[in-house]
Amino acid sequence: MFKKNVLMVLVMMLSVVLLLAGCKGKEERVLPETEAAALATYVPPGELDEYYMFASGGHSGQVYVVGIPSMRLIRIVPVFTPDVATGYGIDEGTKKMLGGLIWGDAHHPNFSETKGEYDGRWLFINDNANARIARINLKTFYTEEILGPIPNLIGTHAGAFVTPNTEYVFTATRFSIPIPHYTYASAEQYKDRYKACVAAISVHPQTGKMDVAWEVAFPPVDFDLSDAGKEVSYGWTFFTCYNSEMAHKDLEVEASQKDRDFILALNWKVAEQAAKDPSKYSMIGGVKVIDPTKAPGIAYWVPCPKSPHGVDVSPDGKYFIGGGKLSPVVAVFDFEKLQKAIEAKDFEGDFSGVPVVRYESVNVAEVPVGLGPLHTQFDDKGYAYTSLFVESAVAKWKLGTWEVVDKIQVHYNIGHLVTAEGDSRSPDGKYLVALNKLSKDRFLGVGPSHPENHQLIDISGEKMTLLYDSPSQPEPHYAVMIKADKLSTLKVFPKEEGRPNSVWQAEDTKVVRQGAKVDVYMIAVRSHFTPDIVEVNQGDEVYFHITNIENDVDITHGFAICLYNVDMQVEPGETRTVKIVANKPGVFPFYCTNFCSALHQEMQGYLLVKPKL
Amino acid sequence: MFKKNVLMVLVMMLSVVLLLAGCKGKEERVLPETEAAALATYVPPGELDEYYMFASGGHSGQVYVVGIPSMRLIRIVPVFTPDVATGYGIDEGTKKMLGGLIWGDAHHPNFSETKGEYDGRWLFINDNANARIARINLKTFYTEEILGPIPNLIGTHAGAFVTPNTEYVFTATRFSIPIPHYTYASAEQYKDRYKACVAAISVHPQTGKMDVAWEVAFPPVDFDLSDAGKEVSYGWTFFTCYNSEMAHKDLEVEASQKDRDFILALNWKVAEQAAKDPSKYSMIGGVKVIDPTKAPGIAYWVPCPKSPHGVDVSPDGKYFIGGGKLSPVVAVFDFEKLQKAIEAKDFEGDFSGVPVVRYESVNVAEVPVGLGPLHTQFDDKGYAYTSLFVESAVAKWKLGTWEVVDKIQVHYNIGHLVTAEGDSRSPDGKYLVALNKLSKDRFLGVGPSHPENHQLIDISGEKMTLLYDSPSQPEPHYAVMIKADKLSTLKVFPKEEGRPNSVWQAEDTKVVRQGAKVDVYMIAVRSHFTPDIVEVNQGDEVYFHITNIENDVDITHGFAICLYNVDMQVEPGETRTVKIVANKPGVFPFYCTNFCSALHQEMQGYLLVKPKL
Repeated sequence: MFKKNVLMVLVMMLSVVLLLAGCKGKEERVLPETEAAALATYVPPGELDEYYMFASGGHSGQVYVVGIPSMRLIRIVPVFTPDVATGYGIDEGTKKMLGGLIWGDAHHPNFSETKGEYDGRWLFINDNANARIARINLKTFYTEEILGPIPNLIGTHAGAFVTPNTEYVFTATRFSIPIPHYTYASAEQYKDRYKACVAAISVHPQTGKMDVAWEVAFPPVDFDLSDAGKEVSYGWTFFTCYNSEMAHKDLEVEASQKDRDFILALNWKVAEQAAKDPSKYSMIGGVKVIDPTKAPGIAYWVPCPKSPHGVDVSPDGKYFIGGGKLSPVVAVFDFEKLQKAIEAKDFEGDFSGVPVVRYESVNVAEVPVGLGPLHTQFDDKGYAYTSLFVESAVAKWKLGTWEVVDKIQVHYNIGHLVTAEGDSRSPDGKYLVALNKLSKDRFLGVGPSHPENHQLIDISGEKMTLLYDSPSQPEPHYAVMIKADKLSTLKVFPKEEGRPNSVWQAEDTKVVRQGAKVDVYMIAVRSHFTPDIVEVNQGDEVYFHITNIENDVDITHGFAICLYNVDMQVEPGETRTVKIVANKPGVFPFYCTNFCSALHQEMQGYLLVKPKL
Repeated sequence: MFKKNVLMVLVMMLSVVLLLAGCKGKEERVLPETEAAALATYVPPGELDEYYMFASGGHSGQVYVVGIPSMRLIRIVPVFTPDVATGYGIDEGTKKMLGGLIWGDAHHPNFSETKGEYDGRWLFINDNANARIARINLKTFYTEEILGPIPNLIGTHAGAFVTPNTEYVFTATRFSIPIPHYTYASAEQYKDRYKACVAAISVHPQTGKMDVAWEVAFPPVDFDLSDAGKEVSYGWTFFTCYNSEMAHKDLEVEASQKDRDFILALNWKVAEQAAKDPSKYSMIGGVKVIDPTKAPGIAYWVPCPKSPHGVDVSPDGKYFIGGGKLSPVVAVFDFEKLQKAIEAKDFEGDFSGVPVVRYESVNVAEVPVGLGPLHTQFDDKGYAYTSLFVESAVAKWKLGTWEVVDKIQVHYNIGHLVTAEGDSRSPDGKYLVALNKLSKDRFLGVGPSHPENHQLIDISGEKMTLLYDSPSQPEPHYAVMIKADKLSTLKVFPKEEGRPNSVWQAEDTKVVRQGAKVDVYMIAVRSHFTPDIVEVNQGDEVYFHITNIENDVDITHGFAICLYNVDMQVEPGETRTVKIVANKPGVFPFYCTNFCSALHQEMQGYLLVKPKL
């Protein structure tokens, strides 16, 4: 009997083992961690992502909107570059905003903030190439304003960095030039005649409208990145610089001579006052440019090892952290100690008339994160995450104890990284995205140029876990992540009867001629343009003012004219204008380019251009 | 003892149940089908997708490359629209290819074929707006050639459709016009003076070079879509048309009057012969335009219900299938029956001198798929899949028995659909992607314009299963899917010492002036441009010839000049040229825009433009 029982138990145990082995069914070859990652990133049909990530498009000039955790690219928002898919830069309004520039180099997006929290109103982003800042309205996802080229600045890599109540967006020169723009001075005059400027762009608290408030001019270092103080360090902002050697050629050698460059600590509250005192600034390029040697208390250089790239302020504002890209450590500086050093005039000397604070007096840690530290982000548990370009890794370390607690490999060389709400005063933790620069073999081949690789990493546990590889279009440098419920987007533009150039019913459409200028007031509604035959004379300047009178969500109409190089989209309830010069005679179909209905193909008409005799 | 045994068994059984219940661990709330879909679409980090999908970018003018089953957007290939992210349309070579046109309306990509199979050499795609065809090299993913505007054609929606050995790419006019281009004729003369043309574009079998071989002119119907015959129907090609009413305005009403429009059956073997006989063609717009009334045997109209949109040839070439978008059925026509009807002159009459075949003689089925059938794709088991725009569904039905066996809802209105290798003579089955036009509430809001929704559907089983929702950029119309192992991409351009404008070492770089023309022969290599100081005079025409001398995979260098509106990428081993007119004096940094190394930020130089005195 005993044996029989033992047998029975053994049989049962075997069954359990077999059943357990089989309980994954046909997916049994999938490793559990792979399965967990698959489920963690899968957003089932009909469900929505938890976070928006806004990534800069680099030299594409645009902004990429990505859902987290699915990593799906939901939208490319055109910013600095025309976009025929939406008509951006083609209709008269946006064409004027772009001002003839066909591209930008979009680097660092940052949200508007209220009390140090992302408020979901606007996204700012800089154009490194042409010294511009754009502002995207997060209700419409439209680029609403582009400021610049900002006088005196160029290669404005250090931008667009927002203060805790969106008082200012800061940006600064990377490649110094003689100022103002279009001034010639030979390269040999670099140290004397070339300047690196910091600009404070004020933001209207209601409308968001930007203006150049004031600038500060420095010797020709290369300002690189920035972050605004918050909480205890509110009122200050920080910029890294390299090339304190002030070399003007062979920079990859000449700008890497010194063991330490600087973080510039700028007191923007003091600068605001200096901008009211004509003895402290000069008007250059139409802007008040403050001379920091004439405005004591405005700026201090903090030595930082070596060729620092990123500077990041901790959520509580107590620390600012420099990533020296040619160093194996991040240098952590204590804001309170900086204040004490300034009070005590605890300086190593000066650099071009601006005090250099003693390194040892303000540095509180050199955290041995690994090779090539660039940028640091934060979570909700007091940890910092630093990207390591040379090592292709992310290091997790503890603020305060400075202990490195975890490291994860990424594929491959990482630049920036972003955590959920990681630049706010209350980061969410949870997700980290590594913005890796080279994907090499991580995706199907698409020719000599490979996509970048954004890797989603779970940072909710003690150990970081890699969840997903996601290809990106060229070429994100930085990204910011916001909780999805903070944004509430516009679905349909409200009908405004009095809106300039709008018409709202077929009987009000018209063609108005004044000399050789023709205004066509047109409506678009499924599946018809009214009028659908437009006849003009060769040489006429023709403005098509098109109102999409739909009030249904997502019923976009396109308007294209064959061979006339025109395409524009008009959203429900919107009016937009596009202009052509009718220099080619003949018959040119126009048609709806954005699929709108079963009879979309029939939504067409003709532009007839009568030849000059 | 018996009771004790029973108890033991019960305890063991309970354990089994509990263990089974718990074996999914913390994911137990996930439904099994969701879990299966997650695993089916998840491509773990380091692994690659199984298929490439190439989707047209619609009015973006580009092509989207997507990995299947992950649905990740790997690359946007610039085709008809300049792209600053790659310098496409900015460097001298591609700028010339685009010929001043800033956009295209990319509709139907199709692979080159050998014996009816995708051969992985080229992808062709049409520009509906400007009557062009582009050819993308699938080794480099570069657009290598753009042909057009093709004389006499416009609104070439019906393109680019490839014959089984890539003898021709076919395209046709959707919006009829007076021909040649730039001819004026009033809208009232529509029926007499406007023409709808079909063009045969020949493709060089080795180089791929395209030429307009011949055209055929028809009365002003609206040709819509096309497919080439194969196997038994090899030598023929088919085009749907709507607007056989020949209305020229209010098309959404006037072009939907008749119960049947047509599928045009064109014998391209006969047309080839006609193009050698001057009595059968006229030269119009520099092209041989065949008059079908003078070339018997070239063309036949097959009646098709109602406003047909898609026409698709079955993998064996036996059937051509019309999707009448205002009809609840797809009409299936038998190619052999068409041949018999033609032989027997079994005609209903003629349309503008071209015979109309008797519907009943060639139609073999009206398959009741549902409302708004548009397009049909095929699998490896003899099934057809038809998209239903009005119903927002895909119907699966059996070729031969014509039985509808399954239907799946999609979200929302579907246009085209694509199956793996679905246009070849041996489709793979497995995956189907529904290209849905309106996503409404399927993704996080991004303003008034929503992304399109591509849904991945598993078609390997009896029932179709929805796997994934994927947002797309504007606005794919059609896509084709190829097995990943059929493509083998170039990693690095081979070093060619004698390549025009190339230099391969620093000592060979130079600046050559001829009058006001300056040629700068430059190299780019981590992390330096040589030369890094270039001085010119205001007004000079400056050509920067840049060779990226890297031979490492994925080490792209960018070249941008601040405020000079220039950005261009140069891949490893490549030479490209960009031109500026130095009309602005001053100092302008140039720099590498594509992250390349730890010292990428230092990869910069200066263009100095000496002012005119």
